[in-house]
Amino acid sequence: MRELTILLDADKKTPLYEQIYEYIRSEIRSGRMECGVKLPSARSLAGCLQVSRSTVDLAYAKLQDEGYIAPVPCKGFFVCDVETLYELPLEECADVLDSEEPVAWRYDFSLNGIDENGFPFATWNRLARTAILDTEQHMFQQGQAQGDPGLREALREYLHYARGVECSASQIVIGAGNDYLLMLLSVILGKNRRIAMENPTYLNAYHCFKTLGYSVTAVGMDDAGMCVEELSDSGADIAYVMPSHQFPTGTVMPMERRTQLIRWAREKEGRYILEDDYDSEFRYTGHPLPALQGYDGGKHVIYLGTFSKSIAPSIRISYMVLPKSLLPLYEERASCFSTTVSRVDQRVMEQFIRQGHFERHLNRMRGIYKEKHDRLVAAVKRQSIPVKIHGENAGLHIVMETEWEQEVELYREKAGVAGIRLYCLSDFFQTPGDHPVKDCLLLGYATMPTDQVEQAVDALFSCWF
Amino acid sequence: MRELTILLDADKKTPLYEQIYEYIRSEIRSGRMECGVKLPSARSLAGCLQVSRSTVDLAYAKLQDEGYIAPVPCKGFFVCDVETLYELPLEECADVLDSEEPVAWRYDFSLNGIDENGFPFATWNRLARTAILDTEQHMFQQGQAQGDPGLREALREYLHYARGVECSASQIVIGAGNDYLLMLLSVILGKNRRIAMENPTYLNAYHCFKTLGYSVTAVGMDDAGMCVEELSDSGADIAYVMPSHQFPTGTVMPMERRTQLIRWAREKEGRYILEDDYDSEFRYTGHPLPALQGYDGGKHVIYLGTFSKSIAPSIRISYMVLPKSLLPLYEERASCFSTTVSRVDQRVMEQFIRQGHFERHLNRMRGIYKEKHDRLVAAVKRQSIPVKIHGENAGLHIVMETEWEQEVELYREKAGVAGIRLYCLSDFFQTPGDHPVKDCLLLGYATMPTDQVEQAVDALFSCWF
Repeated sequence: MRELTILLDADKKTPLYEQIYEYIRSEIRSGRMECGVKLPSARSLAGCLQVSRSTVDLAYAKLQDEGYIAPVPCKGFFVCDVETLYELPLEECADVLDSEEPVAWRYDFSLNGIDENGFPFATWNRLARTAILDTEQHMFQQGQAQGDPGLREALREYLHYARGVECSASQIVIGAGNDYLLMLLSVILGKNRRIAMENPTYLNAYHCFKTLGYSVTAVGMDDAGMCVEELSDSGADIAYVMPSHQFPTGTVMPMERRTQLIRWAREKEGRYILEDDYDSEFRYTGHPLPALQGYDGGKHVIYLGTFSKSIAPSIRISYMVLPKSLLPLYEERASCFSTTVSRVDQRVMEQFIRQGHFERHLNRMRGIYKEKHDRLVAAVKRQSIPVKIHGENAGLHIVMETEWEQEVELYREKAGVAGIRLYCLSDFFQTPGDHPVKDCLLLGYATMPTDQVEQAVDALFSCWF
Repeated sequence: MRELTILLDADKKTPLYEQIYEYIRSEIRSGRMECGVKLPSARSLAGCLQVSRSTVDLAYAKLQDEGYIAPVPCKGFFVCDVETLYELPLEECADVLDSEEPVAWRYDFSLNGIDENGFPFATWNRLARTAILDTEQHMFQQGQAQGDPGLREALREYLHYARGVECSASQIVIGAGNDYLLMLLSVILGKNRRIAMENPTYLNAYHCFKTLGYSVTAVGMDDAGMCVEELSDSGADIAYVMPSHQFPTGTVMPMERRTQLIRWAREKEGRYILEDDYDSEFRYTGHPLPALQGYDGGKHVIYLGTFSKSIAPSIRISYMVLPKSLLPLYEERASCFSTTVSRVDQRVMEQFIRQGHFERHLNRMRGIYKEKHDRLVAAVKRQSIPVKIHGENAGLHIVMETEWEQEVELYREKAGVAGIRLYCLSDFFQTPGDHPVKDCLLLGYATMPTDQVEQAVDALFSCWF
């Protein structure tokens, strides 16, 4: 048994039980409280510390839960053997799971995220408040599995005008994120499907497909996107493509290739094109090409869109437009899965679109991203080394090609040492062995502050040459 | 070509384009505008009506989208053959999908829903506002696949104290609804599983399992719940049970049966009990039995909980506690699926629990439901016909048994004619042919106003006898 003197601070933000828990845990971790030592009873410790019994109970429960102490019937709590505890792989896995990324980069050409300064807080906030206050009785009910008709209709109009998507609201399914919609789609399409994906591609979708039990075939791509001949030979019946701005190559699929792709889908019953239109909102020159879905009249294209890029990744609202031919299958197999988006959130999004905020927000963000894009392209071109840029004028990243003298990976490492984060094209191949003919670096600019773009590029090139 | 005289009302809530759309649609539907008639050009109609060109475009697009009009290149829009349109089964299916239930019941003993008057609007609203205002940069990022550590820790504490669940936060997975979590679970557990479900059972879960490709076996139940011998013989490796208050029978599983069930799970590698603790928060007499999960130390039990009953079905937050043995499988197969709950919603829920609002809300709701329960039971017992009640003192519905002279279905029909909605036990059997030894009626009271309970029961019995 050991006396515990714990200095508690009731003014601290940390709850008292947490303070007790943390104190004892650090005593055990540091070895000051050794294995086998008996803890004071909860009652007596509570008396000593002048806190309630339940506060100590809570601290002890947490310590027990995490394996630091264990109860012995009729005797009390004893310190466990923490050595073995640390060796448990599960506990480690939990730690990794719970830790936030600690590295702070000097410059981060991240491919994820958005520019958070552009978010119309006040408007969103007001709509959320109104949606909650407006909440009538029925808003507490669960709502339709496909999503609320109001939001689906608003989306239909938006997709029609902004992306040329041809559908009725009954073809739209709203879900909490693309990954969820892919999961739902696998229920609709059934298991015996072979998916063709470009190589390189968006690996998160690749992992989702693999986990969902699909067989995934890598199909090569040229300057126009997925090679349709190779697709035909692959035996795949679903082609996953990003025609507006392929990730990660930035390729925009030209009209001719789109036509070939649609022709491929029409050739055989049950073939579908899965069009992921993830960042099509951002195009900085000329007219945006309409979605593939519209060219086809929506017959063979499953269209997938998200607000993760156009609003924020934390807003878990994505949407999928099903061809009419898949609606009976949706009804039969997937309509039993209730909606994954709360009705209040759906209402807020509907109003955000209907009241014109979404359009204004997109225009503002397009301006912000265009400035970053232009400054980034100019800064790269200004460097003394000749550089070719691909995938520019759209999306939120560019692809940088040059006559590398060494492995591109080494340039990335050098940048890393200088506190600059980069990605390589070769990161996005489906099998780690695969490699592009010529590796490139990817520079994302969504999260980078506008006034740091030039400095970041200069810092990057001066750490290399 | 036809002149259109449309009376537009700018003060109406319906947008102008909708008014144009509705007018033309009704003209077409009624046959006043016949197949083949040419519509005025969008420009000229806009001029006539003194609205913007895009308003008319929007109306025409909607009409075209729904198949009422079709464009002829260089000529304009023409009215379609609507007769054939109505025969398209897909359009009909879409209509059914989009329609809200129109029937207004005089008294509704619904088994779904909650008492919406008990919801702490002001508190929730304040927390939501704070969460949005507090939103720092990282809140815009997507967050961890399993859910935010803060909410998981708050849930862990709540589940530990309220339900005796033994776990660490790393075992908790947060998801947008039970159906989604079952979907995720099917990815974790893989396909070659056989699920045993009690008969009758919660049919929504049954349909989800079937759709997910599980083979589902119906296992009989007695007064103590699922028959473990029959379970052993069934060859199932997963047993889906609701020990706290089985749906729909209301059976509370006694200690002995729980022990048998856990023994069954321990007998063979890879067996799991799936404990759906859907309405355990509501128990009106005695001590609530802790969750099965705690008895077992969480080794063989997958625990499933939801805020659908305890807060509202529109709040799409559920949680699943995985046994530690399944965590590596979760990591390997399911951690690529990003979270389905927005970070702001997770933050609101975390604070709702941490600040004690959830506990207070549950206590208040327990009081509200207990009063309804007591009045319902008393009102039923007061009737001149001897009635046996099952599944009382817990949950949000009771089971009513009596010496029915005819099929129970007939009693339900009589009630329906009198404007009273009821469910039968026999509605919840896995195969429509199956029948209980003795059918019963189910009376749900969650959504019924407290002061209508007696009237509703009196009305029910007087329409029968």
